[in-house]
Amino acid sequence: MSVRVGIIMGSDSDLPVMRAAADILDELGVDYEMDIVSAHRTPERLYDYAEKAESRGLRVIIAGAGGAAHLPGMAAAISVLPVIGVPVSATKMAGEDALLSIVQMPAGVPVATVAIDNATNAGILAAQMLATGDDSLRQRLATYKATLREKVLAKAAKLQQEG
Amino acid sequence: MSVRVGIIMGSDSDLPVMRAAADILDELGVDYEMDIVSAHRTPERLYDYAEKAESRGLRVIIAGAGGAAHLPGMAAAISVLPVIGVPVSATKMAGEDALLSIVQMPAGVPVATVAIDNATNAGILAAQMLATGDDSLRQRLATYKATLREKVLAKAAKLQQEG
Amino acid sequence: MSVRVGIIMGSDSDLPVMRAAADILDELGVDYEMDIVSAHRTPERLYDYAEKAESRGLRVIIAGAGGAAHLPGMAAAISVLPVIGVPVSATKMAGEDALLSIVQMPAGVPVATVAIDNATNAGILAAQMLATGDDSLRQRLATYKATLREKVLAKAAKLQQEG
Amino acid sequence: MSVRVGIIMGSDSDLPVMRAAADILDELGVDYEMDIVSAHRTPERLYDYAEKAESRGLRVIIAGAGGAAHLPGMAAAISVLPVIGVPVSATKMAGEDALLSIVQMPAGVPVATVAIDNATNAGILAAQMLATGDDSLRQRLATYKATLREKVLAKAAKLQQEG
Amino acid sequence: MSVRVGIIMGSDSDLPVMRAAADILDELGVDYEMDIVSAHRTPERLYDYAEKAESRGLRVIIAGAGGAAHLPGMAAAISVLPVIGVPVSATKMAGEDALLSIVQMPAGVPVATVAIDNATNAGILAAQMLATGDDSLRQRLATYKATLREKVLAKAAKLQQEG
Amino acid sequence: MSVRVGIIMGSDSDLPVMRAAADILDELGVDYEMDIVSAHRTPERLYDYAEKAESRGLRVIIAGAGGAAHLPGMAAAISVLPVIGVPVSATKMAGEDALLSIVQMPAGVPVATVAIDNATNAGILAAQMLATGDDSLRQRLATYKATLREKVLAKAAKLQQEG
Amino acid sequence: MSVRVGIIMGSDSDLPVMRAAADILDELGVDYEMDIVSAHRTPERLYDYAEKAESRGLRVIIAGAGGAAHLPGMAAAISVLPVIGVPVSATKMAGEDALLSIVQMPAGVPVATVAIDNATNAGILAAQMLATGDDSLRQRLATYKATLREKVLAKAAKLQQEG
Amino acid sequence: MSVRVGIIMGSDSDLPVMRAAADILDELGVDYEMDIVSAHRTPERLYDYAEKAESRGLRVIIAGAGGAAHLPGMAAAISVLPVIGVPVSATKMAGEDALLSIVQMPAGVPVATVAIDNATNAGILAAQMLATGDDSLRQRLATYKATLREKVLAKAAKLQQEG
Repeated sequence: MSVRVGIIMGSDSDLPVMRAAADILDELGVDYEMDIVSAHRTPERLYDYAEKAESRGLRVIIAGAGGAAHLPGMAAAISVLPVIGVPVSATKMAGEDALLSIVQMPAGVPVATVAIDNATNAGILAAQMLATGDDSLRQRLATYKATLREKVLAKAAKLQQEG
Repeated sequence: MSVRVGIIMGSDSDLPVMRAAADILDELGVDYEMDIVSAHRTPERLYDYAEKAESRGLRVIIAGAGGAAHLPGMAAAISVLPVIGVPVSATKMAGEDALLSIVQMPAGVPVATVAIDNATNAGILAAQMLATGDDSLRQRLATYKATLREKVLAKAAKLQQEG
Repeated sequence: MSVRVGIIMGSDSDLPVMRAAADILDELGVDYEMDIVSAHRTPERLYDYAEKAESRGLRVIIAGAGGAAHLPGMAAAISVLPVIGVPVSATKMAGEDALLSIVQMPAGVPVATVAIDNATNAGILAAQMLATGDDSLRQRLATYKATLREKVLAKAAKLQQEG
Repeated sequence: MSVRVGIIMGSDSDLPVMRAAADILDELGVDYEMDIVSAHRTPERLYDYAEKAESRGLRVIIAGAGGAAHLPGMAAAISVLPVIGVPVSATKMAGEDALLSIVQMPAGVPVATVAIDNATNAGILAAQMLATGDDSLRQRLATYKATLREKVLAKAAKLQQEG
Repeated sequence: MSVRVGIIMGSDSDLPVMRAAADILDELGVDYEMDIVSAHRTPERLYDYAEKAESRGLRVIIAGAGGAAHLPGMAAAISVLPVIGVPVSATKMAGEDALLSIVQMPAGVPVATVAIDNATNAGILAAQMLATGDDSLRQRLATYKATLREKVLAKAAKLQQEG
Repeated sequence: MSVRVGIIMGSDSDLPVMRAAADILDELGVDYEMDIVSAHRTPERLYDYAEKAESRGLRVIIAGAGGAAHLPGMAAAISVLPVIGVPVSATKMAGEDALLSIVQMPAGVPVATVAIDNATNAGILAAQMLATGDDSLRQRLATYKATLREKVLAKAAKLQQEG
Repeated sequence: MSVRVGIIMGSDSDLPVMRAAADILDELGVDYEMDIVSAHRTPERLYDYAEKAESRGLRVIIAGAGGAAHLPGMAAAISVLPVIGVPVSATKMAGEDALLSIVQMPAGVPVATVAIDNATNAGILAAQMLATGDDSLRQRLATYKATLREKVLAKAAKLQQEG
Repeated sequence: MSVRVGIIMGSDSDLPVMRAAADILDELGVDYEMDIVSAHRTPERLYDYAEKAESRGLRVIIAGAGGAAHLPGMAAAISVLPVIGVPVSATKMAGEDALLSIVQMPAGVPVATVAIDNATNAGILAAQMLATGDDSLRQRLATYKATLREKVLAKAAKLQQEG
């Protein structure tokens, strides 16, 4: 199947955080690509990436950035695809600056914002979006959800036994 | 076409904010339903709603709530569908409490959070999610995007003329 | 005597914080049980736990959670028992997200919120609640209070002597 | 039955907020008294009030205050009874100062903190505390909880009918 | 003299705030142009504007925006000219979101940020920038500074007389 | 000369911060005493201390505390002496909770608040207060001020030389 | 008696807030002067004022300012007298900017900070400072403190009677 | 060419942060001087420095400070030159206090504020200001901007190759 999710980030220093989006997409069997696209240092590349994303077959963009995080919002401004924003805690403000820069978008141009540094959830959300038109993927998501439950139940059982 | 988006809110006092999600879905030609489901006052109803959402044909849930806003996160905990959270500014904290209660979800259970009181963006995001598997809807979104641009250009022209 | 306090937490990573509630209840001679119940990963288990808590003989629920901390509020939504919430500092926001998610509950469904990471106070508060109908426990709380005072006085004396 | 709940507040300007605690206790059939006790302007009266509260038969203290809100914490420091704190939004900081002043108590001296300006929840919480040793009151709380649910269901039905 | 300052804003709703930049530039005798350029609704126009600004003779860009304010930062990303950012208080967050979105730019791409809603200072700062190479303008700025002082002295004198 | 400044703190864990107040008072030749007085664990001792402070000859009280820091405000409520509050960063909130708990006192009962963890400034401020009626001490403060200036000038000179 | 307190403020727009300092000093029988001295618009006047304050007989300076409030800190930097800072809520940040600008002074140069907009407390604090060397004034402060208490007791009595 | 940029800081502890401004000015070929000028400990030196800056040939002042950061604002109050402020994260508040103290200047006296600890951007901004009247410098800035882009593209290529 073709690549449906593009994962972009503003800097290679965001990679340790953003790799989790790739990992969960691997686990859910969703093809993706990963790239460094800086809104502030390569603005023309961002325009190019966002403008061609749909015609290249992408259906969801995941964008992670820290500080004055403009990458998700600008991708959403240019592309018609849904954009998921991951606020990265890259400054002294512990991600609060990135959270507000990403989530407080004006009417007309949403960014689907997840928790600070939580690229895993960005990956799951991308899969959920695709699953609105893909029953098999939705089934895999249900299986994943069951796995989460099993892990908690196992830990609860362990706590009961060992105290 | 069947109803694909469920718009729920914690209280009828959220209705003036949340109606904007319905309005934009009307404009984009996406069928929806609207309901009051309180996580805190009707928890069993929330459980029931979220559990049956997928089998009833819904593909996206939009949930708005204020204060300690648990509705979006609990819907996301129960259903495999993507959930969009709208933080409503219902307390003295001007929506900051709702924003953090909605966006800071743990790994495994994302909520796609939009700006405070911005239910319009929740509606657009729901349409974008559905459009990952619906080319015609994606075309309507592109048209909507063009309309936004035209409005700004008209205002810019007016400013040039009138100063 | 039967178990009157249920201590639950959203994740086993909350255990180092939440164990302090158990420790102080041991010291005050109040029986308790401890369990992992995730609002987001095992929502049906949370419903089950909260729904049966009263009939199982519990009289107070202590719930600890971090981030978008929904466990205390959902337990309070389902059960008629008083629920004590412990905001756990599990994210980059140092517990501020959990504090607001727990304390800002809507009218009708209170959560008795204590300080960030302060499970000791949750345990004491649970004992104080039970002591409204248990004179012997109230007496033990008075003794505990006296102990706190003695410790401070001893430290003050030491400071006077040693400078 | 004797008065079991003492409602105190730092200033008569807190009365419009704090009266809601009295109203809900009336509704739940719990006797209470109401008084103005300023930690900062009548400290000796606060000491006296908190010290005699238990022997006078009180079993729960509800304390509301704004700004550098010391009343709940000092009542908790002096009395062995559980103290419920209501942060009142009395300054330009919209209650955030009162919230932190009330909730961030040190280990050993909890204050059961409710949402900003939410004295209704303080009243309910006081009743829940007393109900740990009073089955009839717990039954009335269950009835109250059912009423909350019915109100939401009625509003949901109205929304379905009228759109 | 040619137009050296471009004042842009994300929406015509920012005009009441941003007009103050134009007013002070008028007072200081600096030619400017004013336009509406939305980073989120007309991204290609923003790209075009910022890219041609230098060759069109502009030497400073003033950009005002609210919420997730990307306009100043994107202008700075594209153009080599100094960009002054005005955080506009357009949301429930009273400009704090815009302030962080504008000021927290990454190394390499500064935005000269002024106080929330303070477009007057953006105008003065633009003049100060131009005055680094324009002695006559610097002289006018010194005169303006003297005027500010005189106004305060007059008010102080009035207070002394009238009490 | 008699002891004129009382330095109190809520816990011996505040001692590393509060000792700086003693050090600067030593340097300025002002006699002081130091004690541990917990508002929350030894409230009667706090009442006793604050009530007798004036008659025992104290003229200024310095009080340091963290979290829900009630010690300075309660000392100010009881005593007619000026009270200087030092917010100690003792919790996850990095002193912001203590700052608001100390500074936001109601009209009628001020606390002279200094910077978070800055007990040196509390000591200087105490000396400045006493110096309003003590010319010799004011002279020693002027000398201290000169020393601060000399240290900066020496560092500036070093930077010029060494680059 | 000579003027011992200088009340300064950054702008005549601060006058409605700052007049409360004058009112309470009148009530306490402390002579004062009032002036407008802007750190940012009349810096040389601030230098002059602060430098001569002591030799002119002043013993305390009260300084009120909003936003980036530099007036109190600069007065403290120049003069050896104790400086009381009043954060004025003059911007969209509701005084939080002024509070931090005033209270977070570096070691060596304290500003005695009071609550946002609370000039009454600045006046009382000034009197308390002077009273360290003025027994008669301290007596008047004790009388004022008694008046505060009486007012609260009267309100409490009224509440008991009227409910 | 003569020295056109003055870099000042409040303390030698700010040097590790502020040296980045010097480094980037070296890279851009702009002459500068560096000095320690404390607003709070050497106020007369600050006055002197700012007053003579223009006549000594400086055209831009970069000022870094932490906590209640008054240095940039006071330099801007005294000099007609543009002042760039760098908030230094020197306290427990992680630079938020310095940011607000620097950016929230009143109308008439701007400070061009950059991100917390981001002295590199202060240096670039100073160069951009000078470049409004210096085409050769603007060319060097364009080259620098291209270098930033190249670095990102190289990292993107590396990510593509190595995954």
